[in-house]
Amino acid sequence: MRRFLVIAHKAPLDPGFSLDDLPGGAGRIDILCRAIGASLFLSHGIRRDVETILVLQNAVQIRIIGELVKRLNPDERSTAALIKHALAALDAEEVESTPGIYASRATLSDALDRLYQLEATPVVLSEDGEPADSFDFPDQPAFILSDHMSFTDEEELLLSDLPRLSLGGRSLHTSQCITIVHYLLDRRGEDQEGDLVVCHVVWGEPKAQLIKGLLEDFGIPVNLVGDVPASIYPFSLDGLAKLRIMVRPRDLERARSIIRDYFEEPVEE
Amino acid sequence: MRRFLVIAHKAPLDPGFSLDDLPGGAGRIDILCRAIGASLFLSHGIRRDVETILVLQNAVQIRIIGELVKRLNPDERSTAALIKHALAALDAEEVESTPGIYASRATLSDALDRLYQLEATPVVLSEDGEPADSFDFPDQPAFILSDHMSFTDEEELLLSDLPRLSLGGRSLHTSQCITIVHYLLDRRGEDQEGDLVVCHVVWGEPKAQLIKGLLEDFGIPVNLVGDVPASIYPFSLDGLAKLRIMVRPRDLERARSIIRDYFEEPVEE
Repeated sequence: MRRFLVIAHKAPLDPGFSLDDLPGGAGRIDILCRAIGASLFLSHGIRRDVETILVLQNAVQIRIIGELVKRLNPDERSTAALIKHALAALDAEEVESTPGIYASRATLSDALDRLYQLEATPVVLSEDGEPADSFDFPDQPAFILSDHMSFTDEEELLLSDLPRLSLGGRSLHTSQCITIVHYLLDRRGEDQEGDLVVCHVVWGEPKAQLIKGLLEDFGIPVNLVGDVPASIYPFSLDGLAKLRIMVRPRDLERARSIIRDYFEEPVEE
Repeated sequence: MRRFLVIAHKAPLDPGFSLDDLPGGAGRIDILCRAIGASLFLSHGIRRDVETILVLQNAVQIRIIGELVKRLNPDERSTAALIKHALAALDAEEVESTPGIYASRATLSDALDRLYQLEATPVVLSEDGEPADSFDFPDQPAFILSDHMSFTDEEELLLSDLPRLSLGGRSLHTSQCITIVHYLLDRRGEDQEGDLVVCHVVWGEPKAQLIKGLLEDFGIPVNLVGDVPASIYPFSLDGLAKLRIMVRPRDLERARSIIRDYFEEPVEE
Protein backbone atom coordinates (compact mmCIF):
# COMPACT_ATOMS: atom_id res chain seq x y z
CA MET A 1 0.00 0.00 0.00
CA ARG A 2 1.12 3.54 -0.73
CA ARG A 3 0.35 6.24 1.79
CA PHE A 4 0.63 10.00 1.53
CA LEU A 5 0.52 12.20 4.62
CA VAL A 6 0.05 15.90 3.91
CA ILE A 7 0.72 18.38 6.68
CA ALA A 8 -1.62 21.38 6.39
CA HIS A 9 -0.57 24.43 8.37
CA LYS A 10 -3.40 26.84 7.66
CA ALA A 11 -6.40 24.69 6.79
CA PRO A 12 -9.36 25.46 9.06
CA LEU A 13 -10.61 23.09 11.74
CA ASP A 14 -14.04 24.68 11.57
CA PRO A 15 -16.35 23.31 8.85
CA GLY A 16 -17.85 26.77 8.32
CA PHE A 17 -15.41 27.75 5.54
CA SER A 18 -16.76 28.89 2.17
CA LEU A 19 -16.48 26.60 -0.85
CA ASP A 20 -16.25 29.75 -2.98
CA ASP A 21 -12.89 30.82 -1.55
CA LEU A 22 -10.77 27.74 -0.92
CA PRO A 23 -7.37 29.46 -1.32
CA GLY A 24 -8.21 32.47 0.85
CA GLY A 25 -10.81 32.10 3.58
CA ALA A 26 -10.42 28.32 3.65
CA GLY A 27 -6.66 28.41 4.35
CA ARG A 28 -5.42 26.84 1.11
CA ILE A 29 -7.74 23.87 1.28
CA ASP A 30 -7.37 23.88 -2.53
CA ILE A 31 -3.88 22.42 -2.01
CA LEU A 32 -5.30 19.54 0.03
CA CYS A 33 -8.00 18.91 -2.58
CA ARG A 34 -5.44 18.65 -5.36
CA ALA A 35 -3.25 16.42 -3.18
CA ILE A 36 -6.22 14.10 -2.60
CA GLY A 37 -6.92 14.02 -6.33
CA ALA A 38 -3.30 13.38 -7.31
CA SER A 39 -2.94 10.57 -4.78
CA LEU A 40 -6.21 8.74 -5.43
CA PHE A 41 -7.24 9.27 -9.05
CA LEU A 42 -6.36 7.35 -12.14
CA SER A 43 -7.92 8.42 -15.42
CA HIS A 44 -10.97 6.22 -15.03
CA GLY A 45 -11.02 5.14 -11.43
CA ILE A 46 -9.55 5.25 -7.96
CA ARG A 47 -6.20 3.85 -6.85
CA ARG A 48 -7.49 1.28 -4.39
CA ASP A 49 -4.08 0.63 -2.80
CA VAL A 50 -3.69 4.19 -1.51
CA GLU A 51 -4.43 5.87 1.81
CA THR A 52 -4.24 9.67 1.89
CA ILE A 53 -3.86 11.26 5.30
CA LEU A 54 -4.28 14.96 6.06
CA VAL A 55 -3.07 16.42 9.33
CA LEU A 56 -4.62 19.85 9.86
CA GLN A 57 -2.93 22.30 12.22
CA ASN A 58 -1.44 19.44 14.23
CA ALA A 59 -4.91 18.78 15.66
CA VAL A 60 -7.13 16.91 13.20
CA GLN A 61 -6.44 13.86 11.06
CA ILE A 62 -8.56 13.05 8.00
CA ARG A 63 -7.90 9.70 6.31
CA ILE A 64 -9.19 8.78 2.85
CA ILE A 65 -9.05 5.09 1.96
CA GLY A 66 -8.84 4.34 -1.76
CA GLU A 67 -10.48 0.95 -1.37
CA LEU A 68 -13.52 2.32 0.43
CA VAL A 69 -13.97 5.93 -0.59
CA LYS A 70 -17.17 6.95 -2.36
CA ARG A 71 -18.51 10.25 -3.75
CA LEU A 72 -14.98 11.46 -4.48
CA ASN A 73 -14.68 13.52 -7.66
CA PRO A 74 -11.58 15.07 -9.20
CA ASP A 75 -12.64 18.71 -8.84
CA GLU A 76 -11.54 20.81 -5.88
CA ARG A 77 -14.93 22.08 -4.80
CA SER A 78 -16.61 18.70 -4.30
CA THR A 79 -13.50 17.38 -2.53
CA ALA A 80 -13.52 20.41 -0.22
CA ALA A 81 -17.15 19.61 0.57
CA LEU A 82 -16.06 16.14 1.76
CA ILE A 83 -13.44 17.76 4.03
CA LYS A 84 -16.20 20.03 5.38
CA HIS A 85 -18.29 16.94 6.20
CA ALA A 86 -15.31 15.33 7.92
CA LEU A 87 -14.67 18.39 10.10
CA ALA A 88 -18.36 18.64 10.99
CA ALA A 89 -18.43 14.99 12.07
CA LEU A 90 -15.44 15.23 14.48
CA ASP A 91 -16.12 13.48 17.77
CA ALA A 92 -14.29 11.91 20.70
CA GLU A 93 -13.51 8.77 18.65
CA GLU A 94 -12.58 8.50 14.97
CA VAL A 95 -15.73 8.70 12.81
CA GLU A 96 -16.46 7.76 9.21
CA SER A 97 -17.91 11.03 7.94
CA THR A 98 -18.70 9.81 4.41
CA PRO A 99 -17.89 6.35 2.98
CA GLY A 100 -14.14 5.75 3.16
CA ILE A 101 -13.29 9.06 4.89
CA TYR A 102 -12.35 9.02 8.58
CA ALA A 103 -11.91 12.03 10.86
CA SER A 104 -10.35 12.17 14.31
CA ARG A 105 -8.52 14.49 16.65
CA ALA A 106 -4.84 13.65 16.27
CA THR A 107 -1.46 15.37 16.14
CA LEU A 108 1.29 14.70 13.61
CA SER A 109 2.99 12.62 16.27
CA ASP A 110 -0.18 10.51 16.68
CA ALA A 111 -0.41 10.09 12.90
CA LEU A 112 3.23 8.95 12.70
CA ASP A 113 2.73 6.51 15.59
CA ARG A 114 -0.17 4.97 13.73
CA LEU A 115 2.01 4.56 10.62
CA TYR A 116 4.71 2.81 12.65
CA GLN A 117 2.13 0.48 14.17
CA LEU A 118 0.98 -0.39 10.65
CA GLU A 119 4.62 -1.13 9.77
CA ALA A 120 4.60 1.57 7.13
CA THR A 121 7.91 3.33 6.48
CA PRO A 122 7.59 7.12 6.48
CA VAL A 123 9.63 8.90 3.78
CA VAL A 124 9.98 12.68 3.86
CA LEU A 125 9.70 14.49 0.52
CA SER A 126 12.39 17.13 0.68
CA GLU A 127 14.54 19.05 -1.78
CA ASP A 128 17.63 18.07 0.21
CA GLY A 129 16.76 14.37 0.08
CA GLU A 130 18.31 11.53 -1.87
CA PRO A 131 17.67 11.53 -5.65
CA ALA A 132 14.88 9.20 -6.73
CA ASP A 133 17.23 7.24 -9.02
CA SER A 134 19.20 5.88 -6.12
CA PHE A 135 16.48 5.95 -3.47
CA ASP A 136 15.64 2.60 -1.97
CA PHE A 137 11.83 2.74 -1.88
CA PRO A 138 10.41 0.71 1.02
CA ASP A 139 7.65 -1.84 0.49
CA GLN A 140 5.05 0.07 2.50
CA PRO A 141 6.00 3.70 2.00
CA ALA A 142 4.20 6.60 3.65
CA PHE A 143 5.33 9.80 1.94
CA ILE A 144 5.24 12.88 4.16
CA LEU A 145 4.66 16.21 2.40
CA SER A 146 3.95 19.74 3.48
CA ASP A 147 1.44 22.16 1.97
CA HIS A 148 2.63 25.52 0.57
CA MET A 149 4.67 26.16 3.73
CA SER A 150 7.89 24.51 4.88
CA PHE A 151 7.92 22.03 7.74
CA THR A 152 8.07 23.86 11.08
CA ASP A 153 10.99 23.29 13.45
CA GLU A 154 8.78 21.05 15.60
CA GLU A 155 7.80 19.00 12.56
CA GLU A 156 11.42 18.75 11.37
CA LEU A 157 12.32 17.39 14.80
CA LEU A 158 9.66 14.68 14.55
CA LEU A 159 10.81 13.82 11.01
CA SER A 160 14.54 14.15 11.56
CA ASP A 161 15.45 10.45 11.59
CA LEU A 162 13.41 9.51 8.53
CA PRO A 163 14.73 8.82 5.03
CA ARG A 164 14.38 11.82 2.71
CA LEU A 165 13.57 11.69 -0.99
CA SER A 166 14.19 14.49 -3.49
CA LEU A 167 12.40 14.78 -6.84
CA GLY A 168 14.97 17.09 -8.42
CA GLY A 169 16.15 20.65 -8.38
CA ARG A 170 12.81 22.37 -8.94
CA SER A 171 10.50 23.10 -6.06
CA LEU A 172 7.06 21.70 -6.93
CA HIS A 173 3.50 21.77 -5.65
CA THR A 174 2.40 19.09 -3.19
CA SER A 175 0.08 17.47 -5.74
CA GLN A 176 2.79 17.50 -8.41
CA CYS A 177 5.16 15.67 -6.05
CA ILE A 178 2.50 13.04 -5.36
CA THR A 179 1.89 12.51 -9.08
CA ILE A 180 5.63 12.03 -9.68
CA VAL A 181 6.01 9.61 -6.76
CA HIS A 182 3.16 7.52 -8.17
CA TYR A 183 4.81 7.61 -11.59
CA LEU A 184 8.14 6.44 -10.20
CA LEU A 185 6.53 3.63 -8.19
CA ASP A 186 4.30 2.59 -11.09
CA ARG A 187 7.38 2.30 -13.31
CA ARG A 188 9.20 0.21 -10.72
CA GLY A 189 6.13 -1.98 -10.32
CA GLU A 190 5.93 -2.55 -14.06
CA ASP A 191 9.61 -3.48 -14.16
CA GLN A 192 9.25 -5.95 -11.29
CA GLU A 193 5.94 -7.49 -12.29
CA GLY A 194 6.75 -7.67 -15.97
CA ASP A 195 8.60 -10.91 -16.58
CA LEU A 196 11.41 -10.59 -19.06
CA VAL A 197 10.55 -11.66 -22.57
CA VAL A 198 12.62 -13.30 -25.30
CA CYS A 199 13.95 -10.66 -27.64
CA HIS A 200 16.27 -12.77 -29.77
CA VAL A 201 17.98 -16.17 -29.75
CA VAL A 202 21.61 -16.63 -30.76
CA TRP A 203 24.14 -19.45 -30.85
CA GLY A 204 27.38 -18.77 -29.04
CA GLU A 205 28.14 -16.71 -25.99
CA PRO A 206 30.56 -14.23 -27.61
CA LYS A 207 27.85 -13.05 -29.98
CA ALA A 208 25.29 -12.94 -27.17
CA GLN A 209 27.66 -10.82 -25.08
CA LEU A 210 28.23 -8.49 -28.02
CA ILE A 211 24.49 -7.93 -28.44
CA LYS A 212 24.02 -7.59 -24.67
CA GLY A 213 26.72 -4.91 -24.54
CA LEU A 214 25.19 -3.03 -27.44
CA LEU A 215 21.69 -3.06 -25.95
CA GLU A 216 23.04 -1.94 -22.60
CA ASP A 217 24.77 0.95 -24.33
CA PHE A 218 21.28 1.97 -25.45
CA GLY A 219 20.09 1.79 -21.83
CA ILE A 220 18.28 -1.54 -22.19
CA PRO A 221 18.97 -4.03 -19.37
CA VAL A 222 19.55 -7.56 -20.69
CA ASN A 223 19.61 -11.05 -19.21
CA LEU A 224 21.20 -13.92 -21.11
CA VAL A 225 19.52 -17.25 -20.46
CA GLY A 226 20.84 -20.58 -21.70
CA ASP A 227 19.37 -24.05 -21.31
CA VAL A 228 22.32 -24.84 -19.05
CA PRO A 229 23.85 -22.11 -16.90
CA ALA A 230 26.91 -20.88 -18.77
CA SER A 231 28.95 -20.86 -15.59
CA ILE A 232 28.57 -24.62 -15.15
CA TYR A 233 29.07 -25.75 -18.73
CA PRO A 234 30.47 -22.74 -20.48
CA PHE A 235 30.35 -24.39 -23.90
CA SER A 236 28.08 -26.93 -25.43
CA LEU A 237 29.62 -29.92 -27.18
CA ASP A 238 29.98 -28.25 -30.53
CA GLY A 239 31.36 -25.10 -28.94
CA LEU A 240 28.15 -23.13 -29.42
CA ALA A 241 25.53 -22.66 -26.72
CA LYS A 242 22.01 -21.52 -27.50
CA LEU A 243 21.29 -18.33 -25.59
CA ARG A 244 18.10 -16.33 -25.19
CA ILE A 245 18.48 -12.56 -25.00
CA MET A 246 15.83 -11.43 -22.50
CA VAL A 247 14.59 -7.86 -22.05
CA ARG A 248 11.74 -6.06 -20.28
CA PRO A 249 8.47 -6.01 -22.23
CA ARG A 250 8.62 -2.24 -22.55
CA ASP A 251 12.08 -2.46 -24.17
CA LEU A 252 11.18 -5.31 -26.54
CA GLU A 253 10.29 -3.39 -29.66
CA ARG A 254 13.22 -1.02 -29.35
CA ALA A 255 15.69 -3.84 -28.62
CA ARG A 256 14.50 -5.77 -31.67
CA SER A 257 14.89 -2.74 -33.89
CA ILE A 258 18.45 -2.19 -32.62
CA ILE A 259 19.36 -5.85 -33.24
CA ARG A 260 17.80 -5.59 -36.68
CA ASP A 261 19.82 -2.45 -37.50
CA TYR A 262 23.17 -3.70 -36.19
CA PHE A 263 23.06 -7.49 -36.53
CA GLU A 264 20.24 -9.43 -38.07
CA GLU A 265 16.52 -10.10 -38.06
CA PRO A 266 15.63 -11.15 -34.48
CA VAL A 267 14.16 -14.64 -34.00
CA GLU A 268 12.20 -16.03 -31.09
CA GLU A 269 13.36 -19.65 -31.22
CA MET B 1 10.02 26.44 -24.91
CA ARG B 2 7.61 23.73 -23.81
CA ARG B 3 4.07 23.83 -25.10
CA PHE B 4 1.01 21.87 -24.04
CA LEU B 5 -2.09 21.76 -26.20
CA VAL B 6 -5.17 20.36 -24.48
CA ILE B 7 -8.16 19.37 -26.60
CA ALA B 8 -11.40 19.99 -24.69
CA HIS B 9 -14.44 18.24 -26.11
CA LYS B 10 -17.19 19.45 -23.80
CA ALA B 11 -16.00 22.78 -22.41
CA PRO B 12 -18.51 25.55 -23.11
CA LEU B 13 -17.88 28.33 -25.62
CA ASP B 14 -20.34 30.56 -23.76
CA PRO B 15 -18.88 32.47 -20.80
CA GLY B 16 -22.15 32.11 -18.90
CA PHE B 17 -21.14 28.88 -17.12
CA SER B 18 -21.29 28.73 -13.31
CA LEU B 19 -18.06 28.74 -11.29
CA ASP B 20 -19.90 26.63 -8.70
CA ASP B 21 -20.26 23.61 -10.99
CA LEU B 22 -17.14 23.30 -13.13
CA PRO B 23 -17.35 19.51 -13.64
CA GLY B 24 -21.05 19.45 -14.51
CA GLY B 25 -22.64 22.53 -16.04
CA ALA B 26 -19.26 23.87 -17.18
CA GLY B 27 -18.35 20.76 -19.22
CA ARG B 28 -15.36 19.57 -17.20
CA ILE B 29 -13.63 22.94 -17.20
CA ASP B 30 -12.07 21.67 -13.94
CA ILE B 31 -9.85 19.42 -16.10
CA LEU B 32 -8.61 22.42 -18.08
CA CYS B 33 -7.97 24.39 -14.88
CA ARG B 34 -5.84 21.59 -13.45
CA ALA B 35 -4.01 21.23 -16.78
CA ILE B 36 -3.22 24.95 -16.73
CA GLY B 37 -1.96 24.67 -13.16
CA ALA B 38 0.17 21.59 -13.83
CA SER B 39 1.75 23.14 -16.92
CA LEU B 40 2.49 26.61 -15.54
CA PHE B 41 3.07 26.38 -11.79
CA LEU B 42 6.19 25.69 -9.85
CA SER B 43 6.00 25.76 -6.07
CA HIS B 44 6.73 29.46 -5.80
CA GLY B 45 6.29 30.86 -9.25
CA ILE B 46 5.36 30.40 -12.88
CA ARG B 47 7.25 28.41 -15.49
CA ARG B 48 8.11 31.26 -17.83
CA ASP B 49 9.20 28.99 -20.70
CA VAL B 50 5.75 27.41 -21.12
CA GLU B 51 2.80 28.11 -23.38
CA THR B 52 -0.44 26.31 -22.58
CA ILE B 53 -2.99 26.12 -25.37
CA LEU B 54 -6.61 25.04 -24.97
CA VAL B 55 -8.71 24.15 -27.99
CA LEU B 56 -12.40 24.12 -27.02
CA GLN B 57 -14.85 22.17 -29.17
CA ASN B 58 -12.65 22.64 -32.23
CA ALA B 59 -13.78 26.27 -32.34
CA VAL B 60 -11.96 28.41 -29.77
CA GLN B 61 -8.28 28.62 -28.87
CA ILE B 62 -7.12 30.05 -25.54
CA ARG B 63 -3.37 30.54 -25.12
CA ILE B 64 -1.68 31.21 -21.78
CA ILE B 65 1.88 32.50 -21.95
CA GLY B 66 4.02 31.73 -18.90
CA GLU B 67 6.25 34.73 -19.46
CA LEU B 68 3.37 37.20 -19.57
CA VAL B 69 0.50 35.74 -17.59
CA LYS B 70 -0.76 37.62 -14.54
CA ARG B 71 -3.52 36.98 -11.98
CA LEU B 72 -3.12 33.22 -12.38
CA ASN B 73 -3.59 31.27 -9.15
CA PRO B 74 -3.31 27.54 -8.57
CA ASP B 75 -6.93 26.93 -7.59
CA GLU B 76 -9.52 25.79 -10.12
CA ARG B 77 -12.15 28.43 -9.48
CA SER B 78 -9.98 31.48 -10.13
CA THR B 79 -8.49 29.82 -13.21
CA ALA B 80 -11.98 29.08 -14.51
CA ALA B 81 -12.80 32.77 -14.04
CA LEU B 82 -9.90 33.63 -16.37
CA ILE B 83 -11.30 31.22 -18.99
CA LYS B 84 -14.67 32.93 -18.57
CA HIS B 85 -13.01 36.30 -19.28
CA ALA B 86 -11.29 34.86 -22.34
CA LEU B 87 -14.55 33.50 -23.77
CA ALA B 88 -16.33 36.80 -23.09
CA ALA B 89 -13.61 38.73 -24.94
CA LEU B 90 -13.74 36.64 -28.16
CA ASP B 91 -13.72 38.81 -31.27
CA ALA B 92 -12.86 38.63 -34.97
CA GLU B 93 -9.13 38.84 -34.22
CA GLU B 94 -7.18 37.25 -31.35
CA VAL B 95 -7.57 39.35 -28.18
CA GLU B 96 -5.63 39.50 -24.92
CA SER B 97 -8.45 38.99 -22.43
CA THR B 98 -6.30 39.35 -19.30
CA PRO B 99 -2.51 39.82 -19.18
CA GLY B 100 -0.82 36.89 -20.92
CA ILE B 101 -4.05 35.12 -21.96
CA TYR B 102 -5.12 35.24 -25.61
CA ALA B 103 -8.44 34.10 -27.07
CA SER B 104 -9.36 33.55 -30.70
CA ARG B 105 -11.65 31.52 -32.92
CA ALA B 106 -9.55 28.62 -34.18
CA THR B 107 -9.87 24.92 -34.92
CA LEU B 108 -7.43 22.20 -33.89
CA SER B 109 -6.08 22.32 -37.42
CA ASP B 110 -5.45 26.08 -37.10
CA ALA B 111 -3.73 25.53 -33.75
CA LEU B 112 -1.47 22.84 -35.24
CA ASP B 113 -0.63 25.05 -38.23
CA ARG B 114 0.45 27.79 -35.85
CA LEU B 115 2.71 25.31 -34.01
CA TYR B 116 4.34 24.25 -37.27
CA GLN B 117 4.92 27.89 -38.22
CA LEU B 118 6.64 28.39 -34.87
CA GLU B 119 8.81 25.35 -35.65
CA ALA B 120 7.48 23.53 -32.62
CA THR B 121 7.30 19.74 -32.86
CA PRO B 122 3.93 18.34 -31.81
CA VAL B 123 4.09 15.14 -29.74
CA VAL B 124 0.91 13.19 -29.01
CA LEU B 125 0.52 11.81 -25.48
CA SER B 126 -0.92 8.37 -26.00
CA GLU B 127 -0.94 5.06 -24.15
CA ASP B 128 0.18 3.31 -27.34
CA GLY B 129 3.13 5.66 -27.81
CA GLU B 130 6.84 5.09 -27.35
CA PRO B 131 8.07 4.71 -23.75
CA ALA B 132 9.57 7.88 -22.30
CA ASP B 133 12.91 6.14 -21.63
CA SER B 134 13.63 5.75 -25.31
CA PHE B 135 11.66 8.73 -26.61
CA ASP B 136 13.71 11.30 -28.46
CA PHE B 137 12.29 14.55 -27.06
CA PRO B 138 12.47 17.38 -29.61
CA ASP B 139 13.96 20.76 -28.71
CA GLN B 140 10.69 22.66 -29.04
CA PRO B 141 8.06 20.12 -28.06
CA ALA B 142 4.32 20.80 -28.13
CA PHE B 143 2.59 18.00 -26.25
CA ILE B 144 -0.95 17.26 -27.42
CA LEU B 145 -3.34 15.87 -24.81
CA SER B 146 -7.03 15.19 -24.63
CA ASP B 147 -9.37 15.93 -21.73
CA HIS B 148 -11.34 13.08 -20.10
CA MET B 149 -12.43 11.82 -23.53
CA SER B 150 -10.38 10.05 -26.19
CA PHE B 151 -9.32 11.81 -29.36
CA THR B 152 -12.12 11.70 -31.94
CA ASP B 153 -11.57 10.02 -35.32
CA GLU B 154 -11.17 13.45 -36.95
CA GLU B 155 -8.57 14.44 -34.37
CA GLU B 156 -6.72 11.13 -34.75
CA LEU B 157 -6.55 11.79 -38.48
CA LEU B 158 -4.99 15.22 -37.92
CA LEU B 159 -2.52 13.74 -35.42
CA SER B 160 -1.79 10.50 -37.25
CA ASP B 161 1.70 11.36 -38.53
CA LEU B 162 3.01 12.78 -35.27
CA PRO B 163 5.37 11.08 -32.81
CA ARG B 164 3.55 9.49 -29.88
CA LEU B 165 4.80 9.33 -26.31
CA SER B 166 3.54 6.95 -23.62
CA LEU B 167 3.97 7.54 -19.89
CA GLY B 168 3.42 3.92 -18.88
CA GLY B 169 0.73 1.34 -18.48
CA ARG B 170 -1.65 3.33 -16.29
CA SER B 171 -4.15 5.71 -17.79
CA LEU B 172 -3.74 9.08 -16.05
CA HIS B 173 -5.46 12.45 -15.82
CA THR B 174 -4.45 15.18 -18.26
CA SER B 175 -2.85 17.27 -15.51
CA GLN B 176 -0.96 14.25 -14.14
CA CYS B 177 0.51 13.59 -17.61
CA ILE B 178 1.63 17.21 -17.86
CA THR B 179 3.30 17.05 -14.44
CA ILE B 180 5.18 13.89 -15.44
CA VAL B 181 6.30 15.34 -18.80
CA HIS B 182 7.69 18.38 -16.97
CA TYR B 183 9.46 16.07 -14.53
CA LEU B 184 11.05 14.05 -17.33
CA LEU B 185 12.17 17.17 -19.20
CA ASP B 186 13.44 18.84 -16.02
CA ARG B 187 15.54 15.76 -15.30
CA ARG B 188 16.96 15.75 -18.81
CA GLY B 189 17.70 19.46 -18.54
CA GLU B 190 19.54 18.96 -15.27
CA ASP B 191 21.58 16.16 -16.82
CA GLN B 192 22.51 18.27 -19.84
CA GLU B 193 23.12 21.55 -18.07
CA GLY B 194 24.92 20.03 -15.14
CA ASP B 195 28.55 19.68 -16.11
CA LEU B 196 30.14 16.48 -14.93
CA VAL B 197 32.11 16.79 -11.74
CA VAL B 198 35.24 15.02 -10.53
CA CYS B 199 34.29 12.13 -8.32
CA HIS B 200 37.69 10.51 -7.85
CA VAL B 201 41.17 10.52 -9.38
CA VAL B 202 43.14 7.33 -10.00
CA TRP B 203 46.44 6.36 -11.59
CA GLY B 204 46.20 3.73 -14.29
CA GLU B 205 43.50 2.96 -16.78
CA PRO B 206 42.76 -0.62 -15.67
CA LYS B 207 41.76 0.58 -12.23
CA ALA B 208 39.76 3.47 -13.69
CA GLN B 209 37.90 1.04 -15.95
CA LEU B 210 37.20 -1.23 -12.99
CA ILE B 211 35.65 1.64 -11.03
CA LYS B 212 33.76 2.86 -14.11
CA GLY B 213 32.28 -0.60 -14.60
CA LEU B 214 31.27 -0.86 -10.97
CA LEU B 215 29.58 2.56 -10.94
CA GLU B 216 27.78 1.76 -14.17
CA ASP B 217 26.50 -1.44 -12.59
CA PHE B 218 24.91 0.85 -9.99
CA GLY B 219 23.29 2.87 -12.78
CA ILE B 220 25.72 5.79 -12.58
CA PRO B 221 27.03 7.01 -15.97
CA VAL B 222 30.78 7.72 -15.90
CA ASN B 223 33.24 9.57 -18.10
CA LEU B 224 36.96 8.97 -17.73
CA VAL B 225 39.05 12.03 -18.49
CA GLY B 226 42.84 12.03 -18.72
CA ASP B 227 45.21 14.91 -19.36
CA VAL B 228 46.03 13.28 -22.69
CA PRO B 229 43.36 11.29 -24.53
CA ALA B 230 44.01 7.65 -23.74
CA SER B 231 43.47 6.67 -27.35
CA ILE B 232 46.43 8.77 -28.51
CA TYR B 233 48.93 7.94 -25.79
CA PRO B 234 47.46 4.96 -24.04
CA PHE B 235 50.13 4.92 -21.35
CA SER B 236 52.16 7.61 -19.72
CA LEU B 237 55.91 7.15 -19.49
CA ASP B 238 55.84 5.22 -16.25
CA GLY B 239 52.95 3.08 -17.45
CA LEU B 240 50.38 4.87 -15.30
CA ALA B 241 48.09 7.59 -16.59
CA LYS B 242 46.26 9.95 -14.26
CA LEU B 243 42.53 9.68 -14.88
CA ARG B 244 39.60 11.65 -13.50
CA ILE B 245 36.40 9.73 -12.89
CA MET B 246 33.61 12.16 -13.80
CA VAL B 247 29.94 11.77 -12.83
CA ARG B 248 26.78 13.90 -12.85
CA PRO B 249 26.43 16.21 -9.84
CA ARG B 250 23.34 14.34 -8.68
CA ASP B 251 25.28 11.05 -8.64
CA LEU B 252 28.35 12.46 -6.89
CA GLU B 253 27.59 11.59 -3.30
CA ARG B 254 26.38 8.10 -4.12
CA ALA B 255 29.34 7.40 -6.44
CA ARG B 256 31.79 8.48 -3.74
CA SER B 257 30.15 6.26 -1.17
CA ILE B 258 30.34 3.27 -3.54
CA ILE B 259 34.03 3.93 -4.25
CA ARG B 260 34.62 4.27 -0.52
CA ASP B 261 32.88 0.96 0.19
CA TYR B 262 34.54 -1.04 -2.59
CA PHE B 263 37.92 0.61 -3.18
CA GLU B 264 39.27 3.51 -1.20
CA GLU B 265 38.63 7.01 0.06
CA PRO B 266 37.89 9.16 -3.01
CA VAL B 267 40.25 12.06 -3.73
CA GLU B 268 39.70 15.12 -5.91
CA GLU B 269 43.26 15.65 -7.13
